[in-house]
Amino acid sequence: MLTQPPLVRESDLPLMVDLYELAMAQAYWTSGMDDTAVFSLFFRELPANRNFILACGQQSVVSVIESLRFTDEHIERLESLNRFRPEFLGWLRDFRFSGSIYAVAEGTPLFPQEPMLEIEGPIAEVQLLESLVMNYVHLESVLASKAVRLKFAAQGRSVVDFGMRRTHGLDAAHRAVRAYRLAGLTGTSNVLAGMDFNLPVYGTMAHSFVQACTNELDAFRVYADLYPGTTLLVDTYDTRTAVQRIINWLEQNPDVSIGGIRLDSGDLAAEARDCRQMLDEAGLTDISIMASGGLDEYRIAELVSSGAPIDGFGVGTAIGVSKDEPALELAFKLTEYASLPRMKNSPGKQSFPGPKQIFRRLGPDGCIVQDVVAGRDEVFDGSPLLKPVMKFGRIVDGAIAPLDERVRSAGKAVDTLPARYRSLDPIGEVPVVISDFLRALQREALVKVARG
Amino acid sequence: MLTQPPLVRESDLPLMVDLYELAMAQAYWTSGMDDTAVFSLFFRELPANRNFILACGQQSVVSVIESLRFTDEHIERLESLNRFRPEFLGWLRDFRFSGSIYAVAEGTPLFPQEPMLEIEGPIAEVQLLESLVMNYVHLESVLASKAVRLKFAAQGRSVVDFGMRRTHGLDAAHRAVRAYRLAGLTGTSNVLAGMDFNLPVYGTMAHSFVQACTNELDAFRVYADLYPGTTLLVDTYDTRTAVQRIINWLEQNPDVSIGGIRLDSGDLAAEARDCRQMLDEAGLTDISIMASGGLDEYRIAELVSSGAPIDGFGVGTAIGVSKDEPALELAFKLTEYASLPRMKNSPGKQSFPGPKQIFRRLGPDGCIVQDVVAGRDEVFDGSPLLKPVMKFGRIVDGAIAPLDERVRSAGKAVDTLPARYRSLDPIGEVPVVISDFLRALQREALVKVARG
Repeated sequence: MLTQPPLVRESDLPLMVDLYELAMAQAYWTSGMDDTAVFSLFFRELPANRNFILACGQQSVVSVIESLRFTDEHIERLESLNRFRPEFLGWLRDFRFSGSIYAVAEGTPLFPQEPMLEIEGPIAEVQLLESLVMNYVHLESVLASKAVRLKFAAQGRSVVDFGMRRTHGLDAAHRAVRAYRLAGLTGTSNVLAGMDFNLPVYGTMAHSFVQACTNELDAFRVYADLYPGTTLLVDTYDTRTAVQRIINWLEQNPDVSIGGIRLDSGDLAAEARDCRQMLDEAGLTDISIMASGGLDEYRIAELVSSGAPIDGFGVGTAIGVSKDEPALELAFKLTEYASLPRMKNSPGKQSFPGPKQIFRRLGPDGCIVQDVVAGRDEVFDGSPLLKPVMKFGRIVDGAIAPLDERVRSAGKAVDTLPARYRSLDPIGEVPVVISDFLRALQREALVKVARG
Repeated sequence: MLTQPPLVRESDLPLMVDLYELAMAQAYWTSGMDDTAVFSLFFRELPANRNFILACGQQSVVSVIESLRFTDEHIERLESLNRFRPEFLGWLRDFRFSGSIYAVAEGTPLFPQEPMLEIEGPIAEVQLLESLVMNYVHLESVLASKAVRLKFAAQGRSVVDFGMRRTHGLDAAHRAVRAYRLAGLTGTSNVLAGMDFNLPVYGTMAHSFVQACTNELDAFRVYADLYPGTTLLVDTYDTRTAVQRIINWLEQNPDVSIGGIRLDSGDLAAEARDCRQMLDEAGLTDISIMASGGLDEYRIAELVSSGAPIDGFGVGTAIGVSKDEPALELAFKLTEYASLPRMKNSPGKQSFPGPKQIFRRLGPDGCIVQDVVAGRDEVFDGSPLLKPVMKFGRIVDGAIAPLDERVRSAGKAVDTLPARYRSLDPIGEVPVVISDFLRALQREALVKVARG
């Protein structure tokens, strides 16, 4: 037992598993059940405030799966639980995932019943991956699906992530930035993640700096000197007074270079208008106005539609935890075992059995007309979205493009959303049809299920 | 730039920083501002659905701070941002935190304006810690504050964490379990975290196991054989049919040991009552009933008050992301610099300047009567909650008790909450008064602030 929690390391990942997965794996192993299973990761319903989910995180977890190995140390720790037989622990010691994975490209907008990925392999092997796969895809999909709404609301103005202090832990703080980049945000305040995922890093001053200095103008002077073109935080004491101070100072010191001001409280629209007018009348039209402080997509949309002269937004809590919809009810369900379709019949939780494919048909305007969720071997018009990314436990060559490329293709995929799906309000509509074959398979499975 | 995101390592923590903290630190360093600052971590308001916050995570971050060091690799990466002068990077290379930290014990219920911790030291050093401290304390406090509500609702019945698949990333999945233990939950499904933080690990089977087996009873047989006393999942096809199957089977096989059944869908109260009756009539009164599936504190309270014969609850999404209140608006504010009180005056964001202490006064029933938030050197009736945990950059001997001990003291601290504060509904009341001294200090600071 640890007094202080360490961070989870790559080498801990085999034990990042729900106990029932190990219990089932041992039961399969003991019973000699080693046929091929297909599990599908999808959601049955959209969160109330989402019109689509931006699928992200699949590529991250595929490399994790490829390198998942149980070491002697893991085996010893599992032994201490007194639930596992030595022969099964021996099997775990030799474990390496030997199956296949089909996944949609990161940054693809998806709808209910559409698999984000499907994993196929000996049933015990796939079962072990459940919680790890869900955790990876859940985090990045939830955060990217929120962030893209901020981007829509800002209508081309910059949106910068200030969320590190609110994200749930450090893994989230880090991978959030990857998700935000796929969702099209402009930058981040997070130094490590910005550098790791090549998203520009932004940040200037907090109120504490202004408070610590002898007076406000002193604080501004120090920054202008150190960081030419900097953005000055103007609401520590009184916004209009601060802006007037900047104007007087710059009139007397034309060499000083100030890039922008930031408003972090109060009536942002009114303050932005007043500040813009003051700056413009002083000829300082190049000084931009950045706003932050409790912003979300609704506030940003209001500010933009009110014509407030704000050039960029810093957003923390709203995107850091996807505040209105922090969870997505992802399901990881067995859909086929030993070549037979499988389905459960729990009330309100029906799904479609069998391995699947999604065919996305675009109209002449390049926007989604219809998605058909079909059996994997069916053929429909449109592009198949699920592509093999792993075969025999190895990542398929070229299946995982570099991040820059995925960011570009994610941008293109978001561009295929019809305008109404970009609405911040729920539209109560999804472009999904289920193929006749899958419906028939579901009916047959229900008959089998009724026999229990 | 990385194609695949690694997990954040301990050695990455110095770069887990918002850029503005480094920018301010350089500005302080350049300007020779190296006086002592006091920063306070607190919240101005409770989330709408909380009557208190269970402060957790302070002890985790204190050890992180003690060992924080910038290596040559960190310095090289920072150099690449082209914002830092070589002399300042040299200062960073030599950085080790040299200040003091005062913190409340983990698991202490706190209210608005009460510092969770205060950090005191040379201003540039403290400023660098802002986002890391907030991220650590935010995660654990948010999750513990949610989990304790589930415990209240369950009124002594067991509550087991099933949330790993929904927590935001793996650091959260891991530290969540520490927070849940401090909040008094019974167990977790998460193998690594359960072992690391000494919380019992639970888990039996998913629907997929029942579906993969030839039939439901076969699935149950395999489990009873491997795991005597196991809990069987009975809602894969039809709950009552499954329970009848178990009864018939056990009548013919009295040696088989089944500890419980789990319901995961449908009308849990009605199904639990029917199942209990069926089991009792068959003389199987020892078989317990566990419920799961979309549970939160409100559903659990309903089930408990309806008298549904449920012995324990498995909870996933609700506690995994603290679904109704995933964020707490923590503030990390400068309250003193160079021995002068500091305060900002942004609309709606006033706070109290100066270093503080919280005096908690309990009544004869052992419950909180009043908290006085006072200046650090004031003396009031009651126990001071903020204690020194770090001095001169070193953890104070004995200041951080082993986790088992902290769990016990957290339980006692929660027991001091008057009954009304345990309500699941907001009561709109807090037991906090601010000392006259702090109010006077605030008035003086406002006068100074008005001068700008």
